[in-house]
Amino acid sequence: MTTTIPAYAAPAAKAPLERTTVSRRAVGEHDVLIDIKFAGICHSDIHQVRDEWGGARFPMVPGHEITGLVAEVGPGVTRYAVGDRVGVGCFVDSCRECANCLAGEEQYCLKGFTATYNSVGRDGEPTYGGYSTQLVVDENYALRIPEGIGLDVAAPLLCAGITLYSPLKHWNAGPGRKVAVVGMGGLGHMGVKIAAALGADVTVLSQSLSKKADAERFGAHHYYATSDADTFEQLAGHFDLIVNTVSVNLDLDAYLSLLALDGTLVNVGAPEHPASLNVFSLLGGRRSLAGSNIGGIRETQEMLEFCAEHGLGSEIELIAADQVNEAYDRVVASDVRYRFVIDTATI
Amino acid sequence: MTTTIPAYAAPAAKAPLERTTVSRRAVGEHDVLIDIKFAGICHSDIHQVRDEWGGARFPMVPGHEITGLVAEVGPGVTRYAVGDRVGVGCFVDSCRECANCLAGEEQYCLKGFTATYNSVGRDGEPTYGGYSTQLVVDENYALRIPEGIGLDVAAPLLCAGITLYSPLKHWNAGPGRKVAVVGMGGLGHMGVKIAAALGADVTVLSQSLSKKADAERFGAHHYYATSDADTFEQLAGHFDLIVNTVSVNLDLDAYLSLLALDGTLVNVGAPEHPASLNVFSLLGGRRSLAGSNIGGIRETQEMLEFCAEHGLGSEIELIAADQVNEAYDRVVASDVRYRFVIDTATI
Repeated sequence: MTTTIPAYAAPAAKAPLERTTVSRRAVGEHDVLIDIKFAGICHSDIHQVRDEWGGARFPMVPGHEITGLVAEVGPGVTRYAVGDRVGVGCFVDSCRECANCLAGEEQYCLKGFTATYNSVGRDGEPTYGGYSTQLVVDENYALRIPEGIGLDVAAPLLCAGITLYSPLKHWNAGPGRKVAVVGMGGLGHMGVKIAAALGADVTVLSQSLSKKADAERFGAHHYYATSDADTFEQLAGHFDLIVNTVSVNLDLDAYLSLLALDGTLVNVGAPEHPASLNVFSLLGGRRSLAGSNIGGIRETQEMLEFCAEHGLGSEIELIAADQVNEAYDRVVASDVRYRFVIDTATI
Repeated sequence: MTTTIPAYAAPAAKAPLERTTVSRRAVGEHDVLIDIKFAGICHSDIHQVRDEWGGARFPMVPGHEITGLVAEVGPGVTRYAVGDRVGVGCFVDSCRECANCLAGEEQYCLKGFTATYNSVGRDGEPTYGGYSTQLVVDENYALRIPEGIGLDVAAPLLCAGITLYSPLKHWNAGPGRKVAVVGMGGLGHMGVKIAAALGADVTVLSQSLSKKADAERFGAHHYYATSDADTFEQLAGHFDLIVNTVSVNLDLDAYLSLLALDGTLVNVGAPEHPASLNVFSLLGGRRSLAGSNIGGIRETQEMLEFCAEHGLGSEIELIAADQVNEAYDRVVASDVRYRFVIDTATI
């Protein structure tokens, strides 16, 4: 039997979010019912609410950085028990049978994963995200939040954390490697913390010097303003890995010129408009321009344990649900240090 | 004492090549003097003669696919003796002390390698390429041509061969890997031969089906016409590695969509104009767009031995020097199967 629960939803593209109700499916054989405690606000929530990527479905309940407590389990559930601290990230299902799913890389499911919201489930029903009080999810798509991380600062790890952890691990950020993080917002500040904890030599490349003290507190070893043209001369050929968290179009050629031999510039966000680059920028130094999209369930669990072990959480501003529209405007204006998290008790 | 030798040179940008003379330096301590026998015509010769990349120096004697016999050695030479079969590729010197040179990747010399022509040597003198009868080069920048490859079909290996061998090795073309070669010209046909000899499953992606029989003879397992839109649907997500040998702007997003998880699209040529791509094409499947530029001396020697062992040479049309201008027009029109080689006895 479905349950009706309170939620914050956008009724139409670009409309403000407002309090409403949505229904959650009955708890199935392998499902857990989660009492949501916190939901992070990701910039992609705003892109989707405003239908900037196309194909948006309304009403839309955003939120894919979700933490809470297990309230009920289906009869077939083996991994979780009532009271467990759990999280849900960007997807709640995938085909489970393609090569990528079988490899534990469900984020690249060849049939397309089921997004936590703004998607249609394998059951044909629309999915609604974490700006709500409860969620029903297959236990295989839930994560365990280790003791030692607050559920509030853990919420953004489910998207921002794994979005940075996965490429940093994949491209071997670690001792002896020079890693730059471009942009120090919700994603970038987690990149700095994780790359530093992995043992890399970490540089922040940010528009201005305004976040330098924060960056050092998060573990960065170097900080440069990209508004200063000297930065690109000084750092030419310097980095093994650059993770670009900025989703507006950058001068890719300028950033590629900062890579050493065999270096990679990884994008974890994507601008709305096509990017331009000079292929010569890749030829010199056998450089790569790559992309990375969140991470699989296994790696997300690994990331959560890594963060717990190293005492890493997101820097957050906790807000009430009725502040969400204002928070969206502030995210767009880069006026948040570093992630808004909704206290879902206020919904 | 410098020597004056006959050569074919372009007197100015876009001017036809004509017979002239240039001087070669005296044979130094570590130099070998090579009697040039064959010089391949690379598309980049034409770009440079026509000053399409900027910064061209005239008179220009092109040619960086050079084979011949050692005619004289300096007193400090240890690797070569008079009569040895040797080759010279795209560069004749580099700084020898940067990290990349020390790693044997002189092609990525941080101070810039000295190109075989259209460059200025470390001695301040202009460099002249292989469309001539003799060349003086430091023995460390000469290659040994193994017995069993004709000097004529070996010449194009010095650029076209290594340009394909290096990325195929770097990105692990081999058994169990699906590799596509885009374009089957002077570069591409060597890519097919080498990838097949490495044991990869090789597909040619060419505009039309006109070279299908040749491709199969070179070892390709599959052949698709890119002018057929079905090709991109049929092969979606198929390849581990695509090597793009075409130096006009392609629809990069379409080719990226053909890559499997963690696949790489490597460009070995570069179009004159900036390329456009949608970063989303990289995010899906953690794909990479990369570049690769020829190869180092050690790897070029390895490639020559690999080709000798597998009986691989370039498919060539041997021409006299006075046919070079006509040959240029035919290269631009893709009317060559698959590489023009100048018999330098005709200069």
